[in-house]
Amino acid sequence: MTKAVVLLSGGLDSATILAIARDKGYQCYAMSLDYGQKNRSELIAARYLAQEIGVLKHQIINIDLTVFGGSALTDDSVAMPVEGVKEGIPVTYVPARNTIMLSLALSWAEVLGSGDVFIGVNAVDYSGYPDCRPEYIEAFERMANLATKASTQNKKLNIHAPLMNLSKAEIIQKGKLLDVDYGMTVSCYQANEEGVACGLCDSCRLRRAGFKAARVPDPTRYR
Amino acid sequence: MTKAVVLLSGGLDSATILAIARDKGYQCYAMSLDYGQKNRSELIAARYLAQEIGVLKHQIINIDLTVFGGSALTDDSVAMPVEGVKEGIPVTYVPARNTIMLSLALSWAEVLGSGDVFIGVNAVDYSGYPDCRPEYIEAFERMANLATKASTQNKKLNIHAPLMNLSKAEIIQKGKLLDVDYGMTVSCYQANEEGVACGLCDSCRLRRAGFKAARVPDPTRYR
Repeated sequence: MTKAVVLLSGGLDSATILAIARDKGYQCYAMSLDYGQKNRSELIAARYLAQEIGVLKHQIINIDLTVFGGSALTDDSVAMPVEGVKEGIPVTYVPARNTIMLSLALSWAEVLGSGDVFIGVNAVDYSGYPDCRPEYIEAFERMANLATKASTQNKKLNIHAPLMNLSKAEIIQKGKLLDVDYGMTVSCYQANEEGVACGLCDSCRLRRAGFKAARVPDPTRYR
Repeated sequence: MTKAVVLLSGGLDSATILAIARDKGYQCYAMSLDYGQKNRSELIAARYLAQEIGVLKHQIINIDLTVFGGSALTDDSVAMPVEGVKEGIPVTYVPARNTIMLSLALSWAEVLGSGDVFIGVNAVDYSGYPDCRPEYIEAFERMANLATKASTQNKKLNIHAPLMNLSKAEIIQKGKLLDVDYGMTVSCYQANEEGVACGLCDSCRLRRAGFKAARVPDPTRYR
């Protein structure tokens, strides 16, 4: 069986890619990042999902990005937007977070002897995030294939972003076919400790609209 | 003044690039990585050098790469080579370390509003490390310019690698002109707590040969 490193935040998208990677027959190694995000329950969700969907190992990496700040997800001085999804890059953007996560996944993949990394980025719903664009993922993959010892031994590193061109509704439909338990995923940027969602942040709004458009009952617990 | 993020390990090369960045007139923000490296004294050296050469802020980021292992610098089960510098990629290579460090520097640079990151990689002496090659640095820069919010606002991110094509002797000569106190830098992969070097690892051998070739007295304390 081929090994894959799967970036697992504990949200809807990453749960779906873990199920996709499993369905494709990969031996999955899940990685989550504890970067000081306000939403702590997503890490609890990640632990549950890793076990439930099935991974060989789940690694939670601690790296405190609150020292940099600059995002509503890591910086208490930046207010969380709750008025509805706006045009442009939202303040929930965490500077270079996907690059940091992919770099760590690259490191682990090399040690595991894996050439496959899965990330749940999605260009349609999150068109505001620069590090969710296909051209970014391609550039990361190109760089990764020059970065490692493995790359000098003709071992190709593939960054898989199977949700890239799907709508939130299509992601949910795909995940339902793979029996993903979306009630255990946490998308809310400011969920409480029990994973109960605010229903007002951008992530809650996109998720709720996704379930509606997919005609799938929304299992999310809202306050 | 223009801000720059400078990756500062505490070794000879990174001390030199910090002095170069200062000399070019940048306001320097130094970043060091505590990734669980066996050589703990390099972080003490980094603290000293940051203060001595002069930075606005010195940030030590903790991220435990020993959970991945796979390198003589992070994994106790991998023996440190002390028999002399060999051809090929040495076991002291830390999987994707430069990519992880540059990603963190990218994040901090974006929050600081800086478009300049300095890294002390060097293709000549360390021809064995894939993530020290010019084509790798170029690919990282290209990726970085698609990764961030800043990149969507026409703010270019430049990765400066001013030592890329210099020999160790040329680096030392350059640093001496800028008054770098090389006695306070620690290059040894297994220096003791006081920064006293083994004299046998690849890093010690390349450093010692560099001082000799540069005709500069070697201030390193060897055991």
